[in-house]
Amino acid sequence: MKKHLISAADLSREDALRILDTAEELAQVSERSIKKLPTLRGRTVVNLFFEDSTRTRISFEAAAKRLSADVINFSAKGSSVSKGESLKDTALTLQAMGADAVVIRHGASGAPQNLTQWVSGSVVNAGDGTHEHPTQALLDAFTMRRRLGDLAGRRVAIVGDVLHSRVARSNVLLLHTLGAQVTLVAPPTLLPVAVDAWPCEVSYDLDAVLPKSDVVMMLRVQQERMNAAFFPSAREYSRRYGLDRDRMARIHDDAIVMHPGPMNRGMEIAAEVADSARSTIVEQVANGVTVRMAVLYLLLGGSEPAIGGTL
Amino acid sequence: MKKHLISAADLSREDALRILDTAEELAQVSERSIKKLPTLRGRTVVNLFFEDSTRTRISFEAAAKRLSADVINFSAKGSSVSKGESLKDTALTLQAMGADAVVIRHGASGAPQNLTQWVSGSVVNAGDGTHEHPTQALLDAFTMRRRLGDLAGRRVAIVGDVLHSRVARSNVLLLHTLGAQVTLVAPPTLLPVAVDAWPCEVSYDLDAVLPKSDVVMMLRVQQERMNAAFFPSAREYSRRYGLDRDRMARIHDDAIVMHPGPMNRGMEIAAEVADSARSTIVEQVANGVTVRMAVLYLLLGGSEPAIGGTL
Amino acid sequence: MKKHLISAADLSREDALRILDTAEELAQVSERSIKKLPTLRGRTVVNLFFEDSTRTRISFEAAAKRLSADVINFSAKGSSVSKGESLKDTALTLQAMGADAVVIRHGASGAPQNLTQWVSGSVVNAGDGTHEHPTQALLDAFTMRRRLGDLAGRRVAIVGDVLHSRVARSNVLLLHTLGAQVTLVAPPTLLPVAVDAWPCEVSYDLDAVLPKSDVVMMLRVQQERMNAAFFPSAREYSRRYGLDRDRMARIHDDAIVMHPGPMNRGMEIAAEVADSARSTIVEQVANGVTVRMAVLYLLLGGSEPAIGGTL
Repeated sequence: MKKHLISAADLSREDALRILDTAEELAQVSERSIKKLPTLRGRTVVNLFFEDSTRTRISFEAAAKRLSADVINFSAKGSSVSKGESLKDTALTLQAMGADAVVIRHGASGAPQNLTQWVSGSVVNAGDGTHEHPTQALLDAFTMRRRLGDLAGRRVAIVGDVLHSRVARSNVLLLHTLGAQVTLVAPPTLLPVAVDAWPCEVSYDLDAVLPKSDVVMMLRVQQERMNAAFFPSAREYSRRYGLDRDRMARIHDDAIVMHPGPMNRGMEIAAEVADSARSTIVEQVANGVTVRMAVLYLLLGGSEPAIGGTL
Repeated sequence: MKKHLISAADLSREDALRILDTAEELAQVSERSIKKLPTLRGRTVVNLFFEDSTRTRISFEAAAKRLSADVINFSAKGSSVSKGESLKDTALTLQAMGADAVVIRHGASGAPQNLTQWVSGSVVNAGDGTHEHPTQALLDAFTMRRRLGDLAGRRVAIVGDVLHSRVARSNVLLLHTLGAQVTLVAPPTLLPVAVDAWPCEVSYDLDAVLPKSDVVMMLRVQQERMNAAFFPSAREYSRRYGLDRDRMARIHDDAIVMHPGPMNRGMEIAAEVADSARSTIVEQVANGVTVRMAVLYLLLGGSEPAIGGTL
Repeated sequence: MKKHLISAADLSREDALRILDTAEELAQVSERSIKKLPTLRGRTVVNLFFEDSTRTRISFEAAAKRLSADVINFSAKGSSVSKGESLKDTALTLQAMGADAVVIRHGASGAPQNLTQWVSGSVVNAGDGTHEHPTQALLDAFTMRRRLGDLAGRRVAIVGDVLHSRVARSNVLLLHTLGAQVTLVAPPTLLPVAVDAWPCEVSYDLDAVLPKSDVVMMLRVQQERMNAAFFPSAREYSRRYGLDRDRMARIHDDAIVMHPGPMNRGMEIAAEVADSARSTIVEQVANGVTVRMAVLYLLLGGSEPAIGGTL
């Protein structure tokens, strides 16, 4: 496995399975009420967040602390970054402070890749612009696998604002690696121009795709990014691409509904769908911590086994 | 004892004494310079603060860390909450992340109670709207007991802006449970309409109440909530309801002066009163950490004794 | 050694050497990949920051955590301080919470000294107004000593906005104590009126000073503090007091270039100078953590040796 996790495309099938299998082991340990492992004692994980994302930050923070790492939160707001310091200088600072891993969220696509030039520790991309969010794809795959078993041949619909979604991109790449078949469902204005080159199908007709899907993943509508140019209205969007009770009836009995959160209840997903037994939304959050534990453990290459210490 | 601590009204006399006795044990351990106990190792306490309150947050943080818990601070400002996420979804996130306890401060009365529907861990109310602040009442009772002994029959005056004070409400309820006699002293416009139903007396005349009191608890004037409708002026308020040197002379020799902080020195309390030997204001802060340690320990139901580990 | 670290002037030569020697021991331990020491387990270090300074805050945070202390970050923004609470009341709060050390950054010169009246723990000045920043001077001295050996007789040029620089003042005081000879180089408008009383020389001519210097320390230009009254333009400043490639050629081969960061690349220092092998800018950051570990260890007076625990 590589030293950094920047893109889902960096993961070979073997890498991805190794992360998912490690996460499975960690989940089983956790279910035996062993919450804290000594694996990364003495290591320092820095959360370097240039955009607010409390959920993602605390997921990584919880993951690192359960492995006994020290965590330092570095919010770039109000820091010297806002006085004009470059990413390079921030990176050199973290490097000099001995960060073993830097988890970075940044508004610019490519920032995590740049960071790898300047730090000797591992870099984990926690979301860069509209580019990628690989640990989200890993936790989604882990959630699917726990519900459905092996993903090879499974059919996954990813629905909504693909254009602005790093979650969609990372999921397409990882699911392809794992042998699943992805169909993107979105209005043409919310699909990236280069989508033809992605290893997936495209449809504009949600009702046609639903009955054939094992997984229906609804994307968050970025209302701040929506405008009349993209779509006539929120109501119209919801009518054509929202998952409500009527549409749920078209999905086959074993299919699951996913959402990366935070949801716009009543917009892309109805509240009763979000709260139904087939929704994995809460599991996804829990699995996020577990998968991030696995990633940090494997990247930091603990010489000791991830789990052995307390068993 | 219940699983959550939402209201002082939830505490039976037995519950309250158990918390105070546990806090007393913890205080004695601390005085022997044993500052850190292994009791909650591996447990995660989340501070979920929808309002800024650095003092209360760091008091809980210090309490949890002294019991060796991991602490995650979740400030709702700038989080996905501000993107419209509901309290329910935030709660499900914390639940999924495996929070053993959630300490919540929220601007809306009732939010902590709502939270208990969605998380399996313990919920501790760290202040909700104008409703309650039960750990403040517990630390106040603990402070009184350390200074005065058993509270049964003791007379406590609570003075000032009762209308907006969750501290006053929680204190009235808990002190009643513990057998003390409370008199609220405030201008009529700063008393809640329902005060007749509270288990306490009411007076508008501070000078008459002071000589009969064992405890004089001054409330913070919420200047941002004051306006001409409530009171003619800050100066007039101070003249009639402020505790200055002259009024101190009316209090009997063993009586104590309390304030939940932060104080408006010169407004509801004179600086020399705040700093006098009969003021317990600094002790209250120290006792806050101790009492919150006791609450977290008892709620999280450590199977091991709170203290045994390091003795 | 005194109980607090408020000013570089407080340090005797013996004190300063003891800190530098302890830091050297800690650096060597760290180079053997032992990153975490148990020395301050159970102690609480509070970072009390009234001004944003992410770099300094995380440097102290990392230092304290590597010594196994608990760290509580208290950002005064949005706290009760902004509701008008005095520094005294904030101090009493921290005191009551049992802080063993308070690291304070404050906009007002003298605030750390005031704080010592109200807390029983150690106070460390992490920058107060334009007054002092003693741990910066210590890390700079440590960096020089690692590169150049004993500082006695070494010639150090400190270049730029001395008027607004607490870094310059602390460095002058400490370097004088350690026997180095300091020359301040700045335009007359950016020198303090009282500079004649400082134990150093003054020059307005950078090109004349460079060839005689063993160390060239460039100060950050506080662009927000610059205006036409001080200097005609940024370009003119850079031309006369910036360190570019041409000026680098005037420095002798063993001399080093320092900067406290964050840099204005292209303003007071050219990017290629900042990144050259003779620049110690990255080392300074790493040494900052090490020196702050030494300071915290020595101030908190661990009864056990700083390092013994894990060796």
